[in-house]
Amino acid sequence: MTPPRTLWLDERFRVMTFDQTRLPFAQVTIELDSLEGCRHAIAAMKVRGAPLIGAVGAYGLALGLRSDASDDGLKEAFARLLASRPTAVNLRWALQRLADVVRPLPPAARAEAAWHEAGAICEEDVACNRAIGSHLATLLRARALLREQQSRPLDVLTHCNAGRLATIAYGTALAPFYLLDEIGVPVHVWVDETRPRNQGASLTAWELGQAGVPHTVIADNAGGLLMMQGRVDAVIVGCDRVAANGDVANKVGTYLKALAAQAHGVPFYVACPSSTIDRDSNDGAAIEIEARDGRELSHVSGRLPDGTIAEVQVIPDGSAAYNPAFDLTPAALVTALVTERGVIPATRGAIAALFAEQ
Amino acid sequence: MTPPRTLWLDERFRVMTFDQTRLPFAQVTIELDSLEGCRHAIAAMKVRGAPLIGAVGAYGLALGLRSDASDDGLKEAFARLLASRPTAVNLRWALQRLADVVRPLPPAARAEAAWHEAGAICEEDVACNRAIGSHLATLLRARALLREQQSRPLDVLTHCNAGRLATIAYGTALAPFYLLDEIGVPVHVWVDETRPRNQGASLTAWELGQAGVPHTVIADNAGGLLMMQGRVDAVIVGCDRVAANGDVANKVGTYLKALAAQAHGVPFYVACPSSTIDRDSNDGAAIEIEARDGRELSHVSGRLPDGTIAEVQVIPDGSAAYNPAFDLTPAALVTALVTERGVIPATRGAIAALFAEQ
Repeated sequence: MTPPRTLWLDERFRVMTFDQTRLPFAQVTIELDSLEGCRHAIAAMKVRGAPLIGAVGAYGLALGLRSDASDDGLKEAFARLLASRPTAVNLRWALQRLADVVRPLPPAARAEAAWHEAGAICEEDVACNRAIGSHLATLLRARALLREQQSRPLDVLTHCNAGRLATIAYGTALAPFYLLDEIGVPVHVWVDETRPRNQGASLTAWELGQAGVPHTVIADNAGGLLMMQGRVDAVIVGCDRVAANGDVANKVGTYLKALAAQAHGVPFYVACPSSTIDRDSNDGAAIEIEARDGRELSHVSGRLPDGTIAEVQVIPDGSAAYNPAFDLTPAALVTALVTERGVIPATRGAIAALFAEQ
Repeated sequence: MTPPRTLWLDERFRVMTFDQTRLPFAQVTIELDSLEGCRHAIAAMKVRGAPLIGAVGAYGLALGLRSDASDDGLKEAFARLLASRPTAVNLRWALQRLADVVRPLPPAARAEAAWHEAGAICEEDVACNRAIGSHLATLLRARALLREQQSRPLDVLTHCNAGRLATIAYGTALAPFYLLDEIGVPVHVWVDETRPRNQGASLTAWELGQAGVPHTVIADNAGGLLMMQGRVDAVIVGCDRVAANGDVANKVGTYLKALAAQAHGVPFYVACPSSTIDRDSNDGAAIEIEARDGRELSHVSGRLPDGTIAEVQVIPDGSAAYNPAFDLTPAALVTALVTERGVIPATRGAIAALFAEQ
């Protein structure tokens, strides 16, 4: 199936998306028709995922230019949007791309050009993800056919949410499931809960459920056993950043799954838009690991029996909580980096060659 | 410090313990003065942990014999208590031990003999755990002294709760922390949250907090990164069952930590009362892995801001959850089995020799 888009325009050219803080228990569409609306959606984490944040930021800049297309207006809009998530590399990249396009233009032409460019960013994201999904589907297909002969689906494990909810459409790690479904290859996804923010349990499970992809949520602790039992045919994860040598920074817990995959000969694929490869990071050691608020671990949000959403504390008063958000998976544990331009080994040479081809 | 006991007798010879379903947010003492009280405490999981369940079952039988010490009374009491947790091997063992002691006696002497035997079971548990803790403290001490010279504490990671709350006192995996504290060796414990039942976040954190042992709760996902960063000096876990070849069945997620420990040369110790070694299980493959209710994963219990305890749903309606309770850690990943009788390698030969010595 072609999955629905996470960001679309309505008939009045407003930017439409979901309030992801309300998922998985309510699907609430939000309409963004101003710079401030876009800024707030990013800052309040109603939208998340690098590509989606970049796109919302780009539309925010275009909307800002409708009110004030002067040089000062452009500068102020850029700064306000960037401040909504200062560490989001993709947000800066998208804003810069729009600014570079509109700055040479007369103010009267800027808003429309920016709107057009924001649309181009979205279309490129969709094409990139679909290409990644297609490469992953090809990698999975041979094993899937074998499983089909055994009358069982292909079992793939994923961690966190590198799905359509993080992008404009398809997602990266989840993209193959939409494409395999299109060609009738049965697949079942083991969804890691992904503590402490539960992106797997909430977002990935919701997204796959919406698409009718069979899936089962498991504790992050369970994947090792499942691989030992031969119940995982492949692991597919996204990535936050990939170093020049192929080391992968991704959501904390990814590394433990990579170790288990290696121990049991399970392919470990990293869905990796070439834009996430940071050739300025020589290896994983050069990537700083962000520690986030321990409250993400000590408090869990969910739905009470009466339907309201609430947060419960799960560790005792007085106990500290430490919350590193990412970890590093050494390149040696990665079967392949699956980029929109092709499947490459996670090696310095292959990565350099990928960029040399351009 | 000598840790307080989890089970003790008051001045009127009632059995006192905590309602562990109320931890970590309320420390509620319960008084058990009847077979029915003990049976209910076990069935409602107010007490948990194999040794503690065995002891409460034993006292329950002794209390039952006070009302009816006939052969029929003994038989009925045995059956009622055993039905409270039919799969608890330790419960059956404790009940059988009391039954074997009292059956040859005249009914008038049975209640007192049973009470005495239940006390002996408790004292043996404490001595066993203290011995395991002492062996572990010795193993840790050399590394601890090195860390002390570096002005940092020894960092030990543990999974689940193999602490005093699972036993009469000391616990097994947590026992060394009480003993190292006694001799003034500084230690810091990384406490795995231990999804889905959160025994680390709730019970281990509470227990260490009560004892003043510095500790930090982490997501189960974080341990691999911490080991990569050199921030874990040893891993200590308990075990549910150890096979004749040294394979270890323990709380799900143990295996992933063992893989990471091996990858980084971190010692991986299993605190293992010799009673948990099951020589009838030839290897790990012979141990059945229980799958528990998916609701343990889909719903999380904790404290609301108003202080009440509530359960929130964390996965979407319609998404399945799979909840294997245990996993298997191959013997090759275990640095040592630490039993009350000494430290042995996790090998078939060493295990056979341990029992041959008896």
